[in-house]
Amino acid sequence: MQFFQQSAGRWRSQRTSHHLVFQKSESGKSEIQIDILQPGSPEVIALCEQHGFDPAQALGGAKVTWSGTMEWDQEKHEGSTVLVPIAEEDKPNEGKLLRQQGYAEKAPVAGRYSMGDDGVLSLITEYETMYSEEKLWFPRPNLRLRTGLIIGPSNMASFCSEIRLSPAKAESTEGTAVAAQ
Amino acid sequence: MQFFQQSAGRWRSQRTSHHLVFQKSESGKSEIQIDILQPGSPEVIALCEQHGFDPAQALGGAKVTWSGTMEWDQEKHEGSTVLVPIAEEDKPNEGKLLRQQGYAEKAPVAGRYSMGDDGVLSLITEYETMYSEEKLWFPRPNLRLRTGLIIGPSNMASFCSEIRLSPAKAESTEGTAVAAQ
Repeated sequence: MQFFQQSAGRWRSQRTSHHLVFQKSESGKSEIQIDILQPGSPEVIALCEQHGFDPAQALGGAKVTWSGTMEWDQEKHEGSTVLVPIAEEDKPNEGKLLRQQGYAEKAPVAGRYSMGDDGVLSLITEYETMYSEEKLWFPRPNLRLRTGLIIGPSNMASFCSEIRLSPAKAESTEGTAVAAQ
Repeated sequence: MQFFQQSAGRWRSQRTSHHLVFQKSESGKSEIQIDILQPGSPEVIALCEQHGFDPAQALGGAKVTWSGTMEWDQEKHEGSTVLVPIAEEDKPNEGKLLRQQGYAEKAPVAGRYSMGDDGVLSLITEYETMYSEEKLWFPRPNLRLRTGLIIGPSNMASFCSEIRLSPAKAESTEGTAVAAQ
């Protein structure tokens, strides 16, 4: 939940996907809003029940809403999902991550998360036809980096650099503010 | 040194840089050759002496040679450097990383490395006018991902996806071979 709390707010995300086989890259931009959900909130309870977990096991969750475009289709991509981590009883730094909507497929999915001693959060999700591995970390409180790897019908690696838009924590100049954190 | 040994070989690298202030991205491609250097080799000894370390402390090193182009200038970028890790006596997973030539500046530089429990190698280098943070890991034996962050006169995040060209470890089809590792 600490990682979720650090992520709360509005972010401007710059994204690049590398298609590994064709060696092509594609860029995109989006805005992401991350809101913290309290343990007893209806979204958290609903997602736990959907995955067959007791809602009492959830320490809370996050609602992620995005709106952006990718270079190749120029269509507006919009959506939102709810994430709920369920920690292992004996290992506080790892557990299951429930998602209302998967990253690679639209169906609800439960993956695994683990937080490394270097502050990198790793998420592994196995879908029916693909495997996804994400890593997220905060080099600065207002800068979040995120990589993704999808192994499946097409193999793709992606990278997002995300700068906090609000709550403003320091200077008003985005990007340059990163250096001061 | 284990990470270096995993890195040995020829790699095809696809790179994207995100300029954080202007939110522009730039792509590039290169080939990278990584050769292991033995502890007593002249390059390792020379680099240790240049940085004032006893060569006996070095477990070995690597020579990295690259050749590639970036989108904006279309010039050929070529070069090579020698890297030598010097582990802390009491902490085998971290220490100093000596470089014959810095990544962000051309002068020799000594940074710090640490290997996380998640297999991510972090490199931090402080230059005179900038600060660089890199992370490298192997999602698959033939796929290396690498991120960089430079905080300085211009703030930049970068991402490289690197596919092994040789020694060939599996199928001959690059990229698709990644899934099989």
